[in-house]
Amino acid sequence: MTPTPVRIAATDAPGQPERTPELDALYCDFESELLVPLWTEIGDLMPTQPHSKALPHTWRWRNLLPLAQRAGDLVPVGRGGERRAIALANPGLGGQPYVTPTLWAAIQYLGPREDAPVHRHTQHAFRFVVEGEGVWTVVDGDPVAMRRGDFLLTPGWHFHGHHNQSDAPMAWLDGLDIPFAHYTESTFFEFGPDEVEDRGTPHLSRSERLWAHPGLSPVSATGTPTPSSPIAAYRWEHTDRALNDQLALEEEGHPGVLEPGHAAVRFTNPTTGGDVMPTIRAEFHRMRRGVTTAARREVGSSVYQVFEGSGTVRVGESEWMVTHGDLFVVPSWQPFTLATDDGVDLFRFSDTPLFDRLHQSRIHVEGIRK
Amino acid sequence: MTPTPVRIAATDAPGQPERTPELDALYCDFESELLVPLWTEIGDLMPTQPHSKALPHTWRWRNLLPLAQRAGDLVPVGRGGERRAIALANPGLGGQPYVTPTLWAAIQYLGPREDAPVHRHTQHAFRFVVEGEGVWTVVDGDPVAMRRGDFLLTPGWHFHGHHNQSDAPMAWLDGLDIPFAHYTESTFFEFGPDEVEDRGTPHLSRSERLWAHPGLSPVSATGTPTPSSPIAAYRWEHTDRALNDQLALEEEGHPGVLEPGHAAVRFTNPTTGGDVMPTIRAEFHRMRRGVTTAARREVGSSVYQVFEGSGTVRVGESEWMVTHGDLFVVPSWQPFTLATDDGVDLFRFSDTPLFDRLHQSRIHVEGIRK
Amino acid sequence: MTPTPVRIAATDAPGQPERTPELDALYCDFESELLVPLWTEIGDLMPTQPHSKALPHTWRWRNLLPLAQRAGDLVPVGRGGERRAIALANPGLGGQPYVTPTLWAAIQYLGPREDAPVHRHTQHAFRFVVEGEGVWTVVDGDPVAMRRGDFLLTPGWHFHGHHNQSDAPMAWLDGLDIPFAHYTESTFFEFGPDEVEDRGTPHLSRSERLWAHPGLSPVSATGTPTPSSPIAAYRWEHTDRALNDQLALEEEGHPGVLEPGHAAVRFTNPTTGGDVMPTIRAEFHRMRRGVTTAARREVGSSVYQVFEGSGTVRVGESEWMVTHGDLFVVPSWQPFTLATDDGVDLFRFSDTPLFDRLHQSRIHVEGIRK
Amino acid sequence: MTPTPVRIAATDAPGQPERTPELDALYCDFESELLVPLWTEIGDLMPTQPHSKALPHTWRWRNLLPLAQRAGDLVPVGRGGERRAIALANPGLGGQPYVTPTLWAAIQYLGPREDAPVHRHTQHAFRFVVEGEGVWTVVDGDPVAMRRGDFLLTPGWHFHGHHNQSDAPMAWLDGLDIPFAHYTESTFFEFGPDEVEDRGTPHLSRSERLWAHPGLSPVSATGTPTPSSPIAAYRWEHTDRALNDQLALEEEGHPGVLEPGHAAVRFTNPTTGGDVMPTIRAEFHRMRRGVTTAARREVGSSVYQVFEGSGTVRVGESEWMVTHGDLFVVPSWQPFTLATDDGVDLFRFSDTPLFDRLHQSRIHVEGIRK
Repeated sequence: MTPTPVRIAATDAPGQPERTPELDALYCDFESELLVPLWTEIGDLMPTQPHSKALPHTWRWRNLLPLAQRAGDLVPVGRGGERRAIALANPGLGGQPYVTPTLWAAIQYLGPREDAPVHRHTQHAFRFVVEGEGVWTVVDGDPVAMRRGDFLLTPGWHFHGHHNQSDAPMAWLDGLDIPFAHYTESTFFEFGPDEVEDRGTPHLSRSERLWAHPGLSPVSATGTPTPSSPIAAYRWEHTDRALNDQLALEEEGHPGVLEPGHAAVRFTNPTTGGDVMPTIRAEFHRMRRGVTTAARREVGSSVYQVFEGSGTVRVGESEWMVTHGDLFVVPSWQPFTLATDDGVDLFRFSDTPLFDRLHQSRIHVEGIRK
Repeated sequence: MTPTPVRIAATDAPGQPERTPELDALYCDFESELLVPLWTEIGDLMPTQPHSKALPHTWRWRNLLPLAQRAGDLVPVGRGGERRAIALANPGLGGQPYVTPTLWAAIQYLGPREDAPVHRHTQHAFRFVVEGEGVWTVVDGDPVAMRRGDFLLTPGWHFHGHHNQSDAPMAWLDGLDIPFAHYTESTFFEFGPDEVEDRGTPHLSRSERLWAHPGLSPVSATGTPTPSSPIAAYRWEHTDRALNDQLALEEEGHPGVLEPGHAAVRFTNPTTGGDVMPTIRAEFHRMRRGVTTAARREVGSSVYQVFEGSGTVRVGESEWMVTHGDLFVVPSWQPFTLATDDGVDLFRFSDTPLFDRLHQSRIHVEGIRK
Repeated sequence: MTPTPVRIAATDAPGQPERTPELDALYCDFESELLVPLWTEIGDLMPTQPHSKALPHTWRWRNLLPLAQRAGDLVPVGRGGERRAIALANPGLGGQPYVTPTLWAAIQYLGPREDAPVHRHTQHAFRFVVEGEGVWTVVDGDPVAMRRGDFLLTPGWHFHGHHNQSDAPMAWLDGLDIPFAHYTESTFFEFGPDEVEDRGTPHLSRSERLWAHPGLSPVSATGTPTPSSPIAAYRWEHTDRALNDQLALEEEGHPGVLEPGHAAVRFTNPTTGGDVMPTIRAEFHRMRRGVTTAARREVGSSVYQVFEGSGTVRVGESEWMVTHGDLFVVPSWQPFTLATDDGVDLFRFSDTPLFDRLHQSRIHVEGIRK
Repeated sequence: MTPTPVRIAATDAPGQPERTPELDALYCDFESELLVPLWTEIGDLMPTQPHSKALPHTWRWRNLLPLAQRAGDLVPVGRGGERRAIALANPGLGGQPYVTPTLWAAIQYLGPREDAPVHRHTQHAFRFVVEGEGVWTVVDGDPVAMRRGDFLLTPGWHFHGHHNQSDAPMAWLDGLDIPFAHYTESTFFEFGPDEVEDRGTPHLSRSERLWAHPGLSPVSATGTPTPSSPIAAYRWEHTDRALNDQLALEEEGHPGVLEPGHAAVRFTNPTTGGDVMPTIRAEFHRMRRGVTTAARREVGSSVYQVFEGSGTVRVGESEWMVTHGDLFVVPSWQPFTLATDDGVDLFRFSDTPLFDRLHQSRIHVEGIRK
C-alpha cells in the first residue's frame, strides 16, 4: 500500500465538528483512503473574493541587466538549455520561475553574433524590447527584426530561433504562458534545426508586409480566423502614434482615452479583432504628466514594464517609484493605481483572455463594478 | 372580390399534365384562389445553377462624368432629393436603378462649395474616390476627407452629410445595398439637420486616429465587436503599399498574392476581422503587366471600377476593354477573367457577405470548386 | 446598340428640379446610358419605414384542400414537375408564387401509394402537418414519418423524396426560401434516383434517435456546429408538452410565457442553439381562451397556419376570423394582433434569421421598440 | 530585505554551464534578486509531451459510502462548513483535495430530513446520482429533484441549497472546477439565507419544463446564449434512451456510436450546442458486452464513475477492475482503455472545454492524432 500524502487535522475553529476519538478515527481513515473533507478546507479554497498567492513586487532593470550580462559571460546558449532567459520569480510562489501563477516573464540575453537554436512549443510567447536592437527572431522561416519599443509574437507551435547580427549584445523581455501550460499539463515541445533557416536581415518581416496594414487583409489568406495573430511584429512607431492620437483627441474634446490623461491601446489579432494569443493580452499605456489613475481591480494577473518616464505605483499595500525598464506585478483582484509627475509609458501583459473566454472576468474601478 | 394577379397557362411542354377542360378549370380556380402550381414554374424558380437576370455591362467614366456635370448645373442638392447621385441601371433589371439585383452603384457629384444635407438610413453605404478631392463627408459629426484612392464607409443608421470645401466640383462612386434592403423590406430613413455639424477639414478623421493603426485597438472601445467597421476611411497610401508588398513578396518567392501576378486586399472590420459591413464586401486588386487571371465563378454579384491602367475583361460571353474610371458588372455565377498588358488597379465590391453568413457561398476557379 | 429599359420622367413634384428642355435632354441621355437619378426614386426606394409590397391575406384550408385533391386527380408527380405542390401567391406580388417577398408556402398533396422523386436543392425546406399521416419523407436515405402536428426539416442540399405508404392521400404545408434564393441568384438543383432508397416505415427517423434527446448530443458527431439542424422531425408530442408546461408555469406564478396567456416555442438547431435553418425561423404559439395579444411589428415577414382552435387576426387594416388549417401572412413591419375566445394553436414561420444575421432586426411591441 | 524562496543549484548535467565560482556567485545573486534561469528548469517546465503530476487511481464506492455515513454521524451541515462533502485527493497532488489538477470530485452526504444551507460561488458545480433519491437541490429558487442516474447542474454564481425530504440518507457525486478556480485566483463566494426558499418537491424543475424539450426553446428566453446550460437536470430516462438508440442504430448498420460497441452522449447547453459549463465537459458512455475500447490519449484530465456493470480499466501502466460506483482518474495524455465482459455504463467528466476554448486540444487514438 502506498503512503498517503493526505494530512487532516481536527481543529476547534468555529464551524468545525466537535473533536472526538471517532472524528480522529474518521480523519485517519480519510487519509488512508485519499479523501479530504470540504469543511476543513473551504475557507482557503472558496474565499469570498480572490486572495492571490502572488505578491506585489518590482524588479529593477538596473539590477536585471548586469545579471543578464554576467550570465552572457558564463552560460552558453545551445541545444538543451535552448535560451539564455532568466525568469522573474514572484516572492509569493515558493521559488518557482513564475512572475504570476499563470505567467512567465524573463529577461533574455543574446551576445554579439550569437544564435539561439530553433524549437517550437505549444506555449505562447512574445518579446518586448525596452532598449537595443540588432537581433532577428526567425519565426517559421520569417526573419523579424527586434527594435526598441517593438512587441513581437511567437504563438504556440511555431518554430523560432534568434540570431544577433550586431557587435553589441541585446536583452529583452520574454513573456509566456509557461506556468498556465504547465499547470494544465498541455505542453508539447519539439527541437528544430540547430541554426535558423534564413539569416536575412529585412527591415520588416514578411508577416508584416502581408498583415500590418490598417484594416486590410490579404484576400489569399482571409476567411479562416486564426487562434493567434499572424502579425509577428507590432512596431513602436505605430504604437506611439496611436497613443499620441488618443491624447490629442482628448485635448480636442473627443472620446478615445481610457480615463482622463490615460491613453491605452491593445495589441489585437486582425483575423478576429480579439487578443493576440489565446492566453495572453498585451497593451501599451501612456499617462500624461500629473495623472493619477483610478484604483482598478481585475480578476487575473498583470505584469507591467516601464518603457519611458517614471511614476509611483501602488498595488494593494505596496508602493514603489518605477522608472525605465522596471517590471512590476499586479496580482489578481489587488487594487492598482499609478501616479506620474512627468508622464510615463508602460507595456502591460496579462492573462485576461482566460477569464474572458471562460466567462469569469470581473473589473471593479473605484466603486463601479463591470 | 379583388381581381387576382395570378395567370397560369397550361402548356404541352414535357413534364406538364395533359391539357384537358378539367385542368383548365383547375388552373382557373387556382387563379381566383391566389395559388400557383410548382410544376409550371420549377424550371425558372429552381434552375440547376444560378441564371442571373443581371447582364454583364460596362459604363464608361468618360460618359458618366459629363452627365454628372450636366446634372450639377440643372439639379440642386437639398432636402427631399437629398443627393445628386446617378445610379447605374443594369440592362437586365427592367430599368430599375440597380447595378445588380442586390447592389446600388452611383456617381455622386457635388459642386464647388456645395453641401449635401444630413440624414441616416439603415442601408449601408460606402464611397470610392477614383479622382479628385476637396469634399469632407461628416459621419456622426466626424469630418472625413475624401481623396483619390480612398475607400470611405457610412454603415447603416449613422447620420452623414457632405460638404465641398474647394472651388472645384468632385465626383465619386457611391455603393449601397439599396436593392437588397428594398427587397427585404427592412429600410428605415431619418432626416438630420439641414447642415453638417462640423465644417472642420482635418487631414484624418477621428475614427482613423482611434482605429486605423495596424493591429492596435483603443482599450476604451474594445470588447464589443461592432457589426460594421469603426474606420471611416481606408486611405490609398495603405492600400497601395499593401498591394506592392504582396507583389514584392511574390518576386521574392513567398506566398501572399491571390494568384500569379495578382495581388488583392480586402477591407475589413478591425473589431471582427470580417467584412466592413454586413451586406457588402470591398476589395482592391492589382494585376501586373501581362497577367491573365483564371476564370472564376462566384455565387453573388460584383461591381468593379478601374482605378488605374487598363485591361480586357471577359464576363460570360461579353468582352470589353476597360480603362480609368470604367465600371463593370459580374453577375452571379458568370465566369470572369481579366487580361492586362500594362497592369491594372481595380476596386471591387460585392454582396458576398450575404452568402457567407447564410452558408450559401460557392466559388469555382477553373475546374476547382471550393 | 441595345434598347434601354430605363424610363425617367421629369415631374413637378416638390423637391424635383425645374423641368426645362435641358433637363429633359439630360434625362434622355440618362436613359440611353443606363442611368437613373436618385432624386426621382428616393421616396419609394428609401422610405422612412418599411412599406411591404406583400398584402395581408388569408387562405382557407377548406378551399385549399379540395383544389389539391383535384390536382391529385389531374397532375401526375414525377421527374420534371417533381412535386404536386401548389403555392400561395400573395396578391401584392404580381402573381408570383410567393407568399411573401422571401418565403414560399405551398400545399403539397400525395395520393395513396404515390411517390415523389428524389432531388436536392440549395433552397431550405420544411413541412408542417396540419392533419393526416402515412407519408415518409426520406432525407439522405433516412425515412422520416410525417404525422399530425409534426414539423419536419429538409435543409439545403440534402437529397429527399417522399412516399405514401397508406391507402389515403395526404396533404401538408411546405415552406421554403425559394423567393429569397431566386432573388439572390444562388440556387443549385440536382436530380437524384427516381425512387427513394429506403422504403422503410420506422416510427422515428435515425436523425431523431441520434439528436432528439433533450440537451444530449452524440459524442461521435459533436464539435462542429452544422448550419442547419440535424433533427429531421420535431414531434407534436414534444411541442404540445412544452407549450402546456409554459402555461402551467404561468399559472404557478413563474416566467416562461411570451406574454400573458401566450406560450411560444422556437424550433432550434441543437448544434448551435439558433434557428433550424439559416434563412427560416419556425415557432409554435398557443394562446389561452380569452387572450388578445399585444400589437407587434417586426422587420421581416411571417406566415401562420392555424393548427387548432380559432381566433380573430388583425394585420394592419385587415381582419379575419381564422380556424383549423387557415394560413395568413403578416408582411414586414405591419402590426399584428390575435384575439381568441376559445384558445388557439398556431404554427409560424418567418425570414427573421436573415435580419438577425445581418444586424437589421427590429421589433416594436406596443410602444416598446427593441 | 525579505528572505527569498528561490533556490538554484548548479549541476553537472548535460547542457548545463560549467560549474565555477563565478557561476555559483551568479546563482546566488539570482536567488537574492528573485530570478530563476530557464536553462536549469526547462526539462520539467517544457517537456516534449505532458507529464501529469496526477496519478491514475481508483476509489471504491464500497469504501467511500461507509466513510460518508460515518461523517454523517459526526459532522453537522451548516453555515461555515456549508456542505458534508468529502473530496477525492489524487495521490500525486500532495494531499490537496483535488482529483486532478483542475477538477474536484467529492461524495456529498445528506442525512434524513437534513438541509444544506444556501450559498453561491463562481465555481461551476454538478451532481451525479449513482444511487438513491429524496433530495431536492434548490437552484435560484427552483427545486430540482435528484434521482438515480440524473446529472444536475449548478453553474457558477447561482444560489443553491439542498434539502432531504425523505427518511433515508442520500449520497451523490459532486464535481466542480474548484482547483482551476483556485489556481487562477478568480473565486467569489456569497452566503445566502440559511434555508432554501422553496421546499416544494416537484417531479420536474421549472428549468426542465422550460428547456428540456428536444430542439425546442422558449421564445421568451431565446436570442442570448448563456455561458452555462439553463437545464438544471438531465434525467436518466433520456440518457438511457439516447444510449440505447445509438447501439440499436449500430446494430442496424448506421452511424452514431463513438466506436464499435461504444455509445456516448455529451450533456450540452441548448442555447449554444456546446458544453454545459465553461470549464467542465460531462458525458455518459455505454459499452456493450465484450467490448475493448481503442487506447485514447487526450490533453486534459478526466474522472469516470461506474454507474452499472463492470470492466477492466487500463490507464498508463495501471489496471483495475471497476464496478458500481467506483471512481477513477485519467490524467492528461495518459492512454486509456476499457474492456468489459458484461457491458458497462460510465459517467465521465473532464476539463476539456478549457483546451477547446484556448485552442490547445489534442486527441490521439491508436496512432491517429486529431
